[in-house]
Amino acid sequence: MTTRLPVDLSKSYRLLNHGPTVLVSSQHEGRRNVMAAAWSMPLDFSPPKVAVVIDRNTLTRQLVEGSGEFVLNVPSRPMAGLTLAVGSVSGRESDKFAAESISCFAGDKVKAPLLEGCLGWLECRVIPEPHIQQTYDLFLAEIVAAWSDARAFRDGHWVFDGDGPRSIHYVAGGHFFETGDAFEVGG
Amino acid sequence: MTTRLPVDLSKSYRLLNHGPTVLVSSQHEGRRNVMAAAWSMPLDFSPPKVAVVIDRNTLTRQLVEGSGEFVLNVPSRPMAGLTLAVGSVSGRESDKFAAESISCFAGDKVKAPLLEGCLGWLECRVIPEPHIQQTYDLFLAEIVAAWSDARAFRDGHWVFDGDGPRSIHYVAGGHFFETGDAFEVGG
Repeated sequence: MTTRLPVDLSKSYRLLNHGPTVLVSSQHEGRRNVMAAAWSMPLDFSPPKVAVVIDRNTLTRQLVEGSGEFVLNVPSRPMAGLTLAVGSVSGRESDKFAAESISCFAGDKVKAPLLEGCLGWLECRVIPEPHIQQTYDLFLAEIVAAWSDARAFRDGHWVFDGDGPRSIHYVAGGHFFETGDAFEVGG
Repeated sequence: MTTRLPVDLSKSYRLLNHGPTVLVSSQHEGRRNVMAAAWSMPLDFSPPKVAVVIDRNTLTRQLVEGSGEFVLNVPSRPMAGLTLAVGSVSGRESDKFAAESISCFAGDKVKAPLLEGCLGWLECRVIPEPHIQQTYDLFLAEIVAAWSDARAFRDGHWVFDGDGPRSIHYVAGGHFFETGDAFEVGG
């Protein structure tokens, strides 16, 4: 049984700060889609912002430009196969939610679906910057709501101790790293 | 004894794809500096590009804007203390290279120094985008040369098997994750 917790917006960047691969979900005019993105990062603390690369040839791009919204979902290691799969096919060719048996739930601020089984969720609203969107496929957005799986992130911190699911980091060609051991360095 | 290998530009994005925290080194008119950046990512494959956030209040910002160049250095776990330290003080207050006993070597294409002990190095030339630099502290750059420590990255792949040094992922407040175990997912 997953307990979802709201994440304070001031701490929401921490869901992305360690560089996990994310799933970008989107919805516009009755169509929805999900794709993988290794190229995302926090952009600011307050108000919290993110940057993410969304290729111009994807259905996700069309839905994000149409709706001005998306969700960054932080998948867990058991979702690595799904992550590779939704990063390898186009939503124009098949309904990836059906093909991969993905369950979703509704967010609070945006219409894009949030994917069950993920460790964290960032609801995002695009900050229109047409020049860099068109030239670099680069999208900037404000985080307007954030959520976490209480087993993995609570009180503003990742808690990957024990055998619970961890986040993942894509390299190339089906190769991933799991998020490794936590350690602390004195200030 | 470290063996440094050139990394093919077409594979250079892989040094960043898994989201490690980097050190940004810079040099301009006889001054040099280094700072930590958790907020960087690949931006394109060919020509290879990166995006990185460089705060307007840093000396690094001044040197990067002056020279149009920087290096992204991928530090190893033994360098986590140094990473936290150079991310916590300003180069205006102290010479961080001296304070942290950092040794450097010269790159091939840019004047910014490359830091000894790192696992990978991306020599970068800024792609001027004044609006997003000024509005978001966001810098885009082309990777013009790349290098790796042969123990950690060779033939286009990270090789973190065994007890060799791994890359690191900063979270907040002195907390890091080490890059964890590699795994593969069928396509």
